[in-house]
Order: sequence, then structure tokens, then C-alpha cells
Amino acid sequence: MHGLHLIAELHDCRCAPRLLNDAGALRELCLTVCSVPGLTPLALVFHQFGDRHQPAGATGAVILAESHLAVHTWPEAQAVTLDLYVCNFSQDNSVAARRAWRRLIDAFAPGKLVGHELQRGLPTAAYPAAPAAWSD
Amino acid sequence: MHGLHLIAELHDCRCAPRLLNDAGALRELCLTVCSVPGLTPLALVFHQFGDRHQPAGATGAVILAESHLAVHTWPEAQAVTLDLYVCNFSQDNSVAARRAWRRLIDAFAPGKLVGHELQRGLPTAAYPAAPAAWSD
Repeated sequence: MHGLHLIAELHDCRCAPRLLNDAGALRELCLTVCSVPGLTPLALVFHQFGDRHQPAGATGAVILAESHLAVHTWPEAQAVTLDLYVCNFSQDNSVAARRAWRRLIDAFAPGKLVGHELQRGLPTAAYPAAPAAWSD
Repeated sequence: MHGLHLIAELHDCRCAPRLLNDAGALRELCLTVCSVPGLTPLALVFHQFGDRHQPAGATGAVILAESHLAVHTWPEAQAVTLDLYVCNFSQDNSVAARRAWRRLIDAFAPGKLVGHELQRGLPTAAYPAAPAAWSD
């Protein structure tokens, strides 16, 4: 269970509106960014809000052998929330996680990002007082 | 996107081994705890590691109208990681989230729990320096 959990809220996303509005496009992006050495997609589930005439955002998750990616979009606010948790069961997958994370964020082209990083599953004595927070 | 994200690692889980080892049992638990007023399950995906003769843990996610629940088990360590992110699109769903969270944790009966709470999607100026961390 030890591993890195990357968390972000993306604001003012300047990507193509389709990426925020279309569950198929979002699913394709998520699968693509998870197809890097070190990450192993096992299954996925995505849901379309609204309909094809009036799409209202999309939401979904990719289950990885290393844990999960979860994405939710708010097209009316040009906003996205992201979670990527990658455990280190057989090897340290942090580099793979950060590579996928960067590709995912780049795809949404946010004007502002607020994020957190958690090191999960540490021996409890090794936990910091609070996880690191960052924004750019 | 504003909402509460509850995060935990459960150690020394004293629940029935089936709950850590069987994807069907885990899925049933997750759906049950998400069936509370304020949470709306839309879809789910669960994966069984190993096979029915030698199960090796389970992993999955429930996509909610309010965001998601993700669960991963490590039966060899009697451990579980949990994430429940519940946004407040039309109403404050924090009470529903905490109710589901408590039922989920109680089901695993952990001897030790390490957790974090994040308030996500706040106006960026309102973010605390770091999210609250807690353990019991």
C-alpha cells in the first residue's frame, strides 16, 4: 500500500471543450496517459452527464494494478479534479506516476492548479505532520 | 468541485478475510455503504487479484454522481486503502460522506487507521497551508 497519491484541482482549463464534456474523449485520454511503463490499467468505468445534445461533464476511474486514477470534470467552470494513486508493490512507481500526471495535466492546459501529494502506507511513525501542498 | 475528500489507510484489519480477498464481497460492501441519502452510485468496476483458489486481494471504484469511492486491499498485510471524495454540487454532502465512511471503516475493523481529510475545490485563496492529518 506504500505509494504516491497525487491530487489536483485544475481551473481555467484551456483544452478542447470535448475533453471536459465527452466521456469517450476523457476515457481515451486517461487510458493513454496510463499506458506508460510502470502503470498497468486493469479496468475502467466512465459516465457521461447530460446527453450528446447537452453534455454536462464526465466522470470516471481507471483501476490500475498499482491502484487508481479518478477524474471528474466541471465544464461549466472549465475545471477538473484529478487523483492518481500509485503504490509500490513490486517496485517504486513514482516516476511513472509523475510522468502520467504531467501528461494528464498538460492535456487539460489549466490556467491554475491546486494540488497535494501524499505518501501513503508509510510505517505510521514515519508520517509527516501533514502532506505537502502546492499550487502553480 | 468543492467537497470533502476522506483518505485512509487501515492496518491490522480484523474483518472476515473474505472482505479483503474477494472482489464480489468488496463490491457488495462498497455499494451498500454508498446507498445512503446524499450519495448516488452511477457505475462501478472491481478487479480480483489472483484466482478463486489463491485470491490475492481486490481493488475497485464506485463512480458517484458526487465523485468517487476507491478501495484497494492487501490481504497479506491485513491492510486496506480507502478514498471517498464527495463534492457538493447541489448540496453539502459531507454528512452523507462521513456516514458512509464510518460504515466502511467499521466493516474492516482496523486495529490502526491513518487518515487525511482534504477540502477540495475551494477558492484558491481559501486553501489552508496543508490538509488536516489524523490517526487513531
